[in-house]
Amino acid sequence: MKNNYERRFGFHSIESILKNNPYKIKKLFIPQSRNDNRVQNIKILAEKNGIRYEISKKLKQDPEAYIQTENNLGFKDLKEFIKKSKNNNLLLLILDNVIDPRNLGACIRSAAVLNVDAIIINKHHCAPLNDIAHNVSAGGAELIETFYVSNLINCFKYLNEKNINIYGLSEDARKSYIDFTYSGPVAVVMGSEELGIRKKTQERCNFMIKLNDNKTFKSFNVSVATGIILSEILRQRNLIAK
Amino acid sequence: MKNNYERRFGFHSIESILKNNPYKIKKLFIPQSRNDNRVQNIKILAEKNGIRYEISKKLKQDPEAYIQTENNLGFKDLKEFIKKSKNNNLLLLILDNVIDPRNLGACIRSAAVLNVDAIIINKHHCAPLNDIAHNVSAGGAELIETFYVSNLINCFKYLNEKNINIYGLSEDARKSYIDFTYSGPVAVVMGSEELGIRKKTQERCNFMIKLNDNKTFKSFNVSVATGIILSEILRQRNLIAK
Repeated sequence: MKNNYERRFGFHSIESILKNNPYKIKKLFIPQSRNDNRVQNIKILAEKNGIRYEISKKLKQDPEAYIQTENNLGFKDLKEFIKKSKNNNLLLLILDNVIDPRNLGACIRSAAVLNVDAIIINKHHCAPLNDIAHNVSAGGAELIETFYVSNLINCFKYLNEKNINIYGLSEDARKSYIDFTYSGPVAVVMGSEELGIRKKTQERCNFMIKLNDNKTFKSFNVSVATGIILSEILRQRNLIAK
Repeated sequence: MKNNYERRFGFHSIESILKNNPYKIKKLFIPQSRNDNRVQNIKILAEKNGIRYEISKKLKQDPEAYIQTENNLGFKDLKEFIKKSKNNNLLLLILDNVIDPRNLGACIRSAAVLNVDAIIINKHHCAPLNDIAHNVSAGGAELIETFYVSNLINCFKYLNEKNINIYGLSEDARKSYIDFTYSGPVAVVMGSEELGIRKKTQERCNFMIKLNDNKTFKSFNVSVATGIILSEILRQRNLIAK
């Protein structure tokens, strides 16, 4: 495949592209060795959307697609997105430096289930959103707008100008996440698996919060932490909406 | 290594054994190629606990240990554990059929951070708690008592006799987790990654609950779901304790 195509694989990932963004697909391959319900479902989705597929002898388990590489959205696009948004309770997820593509994908999956409006990725400090990340996101990466910024501090300034409160997560923070009310627009920042959010980024967060009181064993996987904080924000908003 | 030894690997996992159960270690190997703080820390912990180690040329990154295989705790031991417990708010995690050892380990990590009292594993339907599961648990598997039961229905009956309410998670449940008060002793049941909790097990749960209202993309990774429900239980208990 040429360089301007990107690979995607796995049932959830391919299904999600077919359902949400079928126009992206340039080539679709389905494993010959399988003819079960999941494969049938992919074929039906492809036919419904006018996407041709090839049956592949090489593939063992998973379907595979090649999609045209798109230009990543940047800081300008993010500003445009926020200006145009009519949501008074925007929920943004900021990934400062998630190193492992599997963790990146897992964070995006949690965010997609919880209806996060957009994900902001620190361009030079995060894992690439590659085929593995897409696969682990279980198709969630197709559902959320993702913006890449190279200067997170400038981005934070802009978010604060727009009255978006920024909450950074750290297992060493003094305040607990359960002591805050997440009303209005909110951004949540996740750091790296080993070291957390970088010091300079922490200083620019409006609040630093922790998710548990365990003194000796306190480190969640980053996608679990993402699910817990986002669930609490939605829980509070659901209570208010009732 | 002989058959009656089990392998463990990874810094978090080995550190946790050295801190919590050093007597288990029969052999400890440290990679020659590294001499950073993490390796130093392992050496110090080993020396403090009188555990001899060998420097290995073969190992690339991670320390490795061999520990004596122990007999798994069973249903009888679980009953003993519950009878002896003086905790009026027991928190149990039941894994019905988590298939992937990485997911099993990830669930145990979430449970360990959130101070779960014991984990109950459905013996014939779950992944083995092997070296990979231990590694992904980041040492959490050393911190929680784990019981294996072969008849989950009998186990549920016993838990109900002891006034322990059983909550099963399902993305198709009608009731939301935020509408319950988790007072008193509680057990939470997690099912398989693809199919959830088996029908027969669902019927024996006191309550079936869902974690989100997303209609089209609603499936969390099982360790994320574990983190969310356990966090909500602890959040409520912390509020009451205040």
